[in-house]
Amino acid sequence: MTTYQIWQNNEALIDDLRAVEETISQHIRIKNKQIEAQIKKVTNNHGKMLRPVFALLTSQMGNQYDRDKSIAFAAALETLHMATLIHDDVIDQADTRRQIPTLHTVKDNRYAIYAGDYLFSICFNMLSQYTEELNLLNYNARSMEKVLIGELDQLESRFTPPKSVKSYLSRISGKTAQLFAVSCYTGATESGASLRDRQRAYNMGKYIGMAFQIIDDILDVKGDAKDVGKPVMADIRQGIYTLPLIYSYQQQPEKVGALLNKETPFSDETIHELKALIDQTGGVIAAQKLAARYTKKALNTLSKLPEGDYKATLKHIITDMLERTL
Amino acid sequence: MTTYQIWQNNEALIDDLRAVEETISQHIRIKNKQIEAQIKKVTNNHGKMLRPVFALLTSQMGNQYDRDKSIAFAAALETLHMATLIHDDVIDQADTRRQIPTLHTVKDNRYAIYAGDYLFSICFNMLSQYTEELNLLNYNARSMEKVLIGELDQLESRFTPPKSVKSYLSRISGKTAQLFAVSCYTGATESGASLRDRQRAYNMGKYIGMAFQIIDDILDVKGDAKDVGKPVMADIRQGIYTLPLIYSYQQQPEKVGALLNKETPFSDETIHELKALIDQTGGVIAAQKLAARYTKKALNTLSKLPEGDYKATLKHIITDMLERTL
Repeated sequence: MTTYQIWQNNEALIDDLRAVEETISQHIRIKNKQIEAQIKKVTNNHGKMLRPVFALLTSQMGNQYDRDKSIAFAAALETLHMATLIHDDVIDQADTRRQIPTLHTVKDNRYAIYAGDYLFSICFNMLSQYTEELNLLNYNARSMEKVLIGELDQLESRFTPPKSVKSYLSRISGKTAQLFAVSCYTGATESGASLRDRQRAYNMGKYIGMAFQIIDDILDVKGDAKDVGKPVMADIRQGIYTLPLIYSYQQQPEKVGALLNKETPFSDETIHELKALIDQTGGVIAAQKLAARYTKKALNTLSKLPEGDYKATLKHIITDMLERTL
Repeated sequence: MTTYQIWQNNEALIDDLRAVEETISQHIRIKNKQIEAQIKKVTNNHGKMLRPVFALLTSQMGNQYDRDKSIAFAAALETLHMATLIHDDVIDQADTRRQIPTLHTVKDNRYAIYAGDYLFSICFNMLSQYTEELNLLNYNARSMEKVLIGELDQLESRFTPPKSVKSYLSRISGKTAQLFAVSCYTGATESGASLRDRQRAYNMGKYIGMAFQIIDDILDVKGDAKDVGKPVMADIRQGIYTLPLIYSYQQQPEKVGALLNKETPFSDETIHELKALIDQTGGVIAAQKLAARYTKKALNTLSKLPEGDYKATLKHIITDMLERTL
């Protein structure tokens, strides 16, 4: 399934996403054409472009819709996301992303670090070129801060016993939900929505992001049929203890704790036993319930937003995301 | 010599630099206090703070001087510089910077990558909080782009035969001179200087940065008495061929080329022979001449800027920089 096929029922949205891709490509201008081509190869190999989708749809909320602006902002948010992915891939030493070799594999870590930094600067270049609201830019910069605080916190807590659900939620709220929140906020703000509706858009995005990350963490434990290349329990192997495991630990602290105290890297046997324990203790089911609660909160917040065609599309997407048919 | 001692004759400037340091520190706010302390340890161990010095002094150019703003911008520029240093240290795998262990040594590469990203976002947070000119923000973002294009270009051209002086100048113009240029431009713009004077301030900063980097590259060949920890010819060992070597190659392409074609990493003997060749062919002297030319251009541009006390201080600093008593 190509990127655009998942949005098959929405021609206008697909056109906009193509324009977003084009805008990103146009902003990557490097005299050394080899470097330029290398970076464009990564940015053209995008995913579902969920963050641009939310920014594009929420930009139809108010009455100041401006297609060019809306596309520029969506492009800035996707560029920011891509920059973090390039650095994440260096950090995880991932060999491929979406079937193509990662930048640090094709070139090296150093190259990938600078390329990520370059995309960060393009993001702020785009934002400052198109926005009229400095407040919005500040929102974006602070949002990026929160993403990185979440990532640093996750690194720091690797291989330490799973703490509370609260600390997990705080971490994913930074690491993942922030960018969804700010995507919706950006769309709403640029469209001239009221302050209350901007805040609602922000909250909706945050709930979507929370549900999205929890589901991602569930798929890491259960295995994702669509993502055959990824080994099951990849996060836990790296010492990242996510919600299903935390719930499981709360149920059986001694049994789970004993396994987590084993020597790292964990053996396949330990991973297998951990997976069995998570199943037995209902860790996945409890996590699914929390994801459903966030989805419900997102839909509830959406229902309060100003009427418009965008709402039906958003409702559809949010529901699909929970069921992960998207 | 501590950081502030070099500015000993200028109490007002030292006060401002202390305020810059304090501002940066205040912006680093992370719930996990251990992470916060680690990052602050790096940012508090700053160098001469040359970029803030230029931003602070040029902010006295126009008639809208505002101390708080001027300090905030200087802090943003220093934070941007620090972010690039943290990533540079990961890339060069440098063990220490200014006598303290680098972040990736204390923690690990991953941590240092995210910490650098975090400082980038703080920089844009500061800029968007204080500026009233979106144009200025765009300038900063584009300047950061150029820095990274310069770094990528340098990485890409490692261990390839030294090309033209022109391509060297284009690389350092991005990698180093941009941040000096934008520091001067930022000060001038915020002070309400005329468009012509802003452009002059930008050019002056660029010339200063060019001279600064050429001198840095000369010291890499000659050895810097003040920087005892750094091995001589560190750049060339890493495949970064700078101006003295390029000049030398132009004089003796066969001899220099033969040495550069040897197996890498270069042996101490090869490095020794290269150094001798650079001396014989006058590579250092030719580079010094070009640095002096840029310094002269900087001073010449400075002389055309509006009168004020800041000019004498700038003149003093620019002259000291060339002689590297600074």
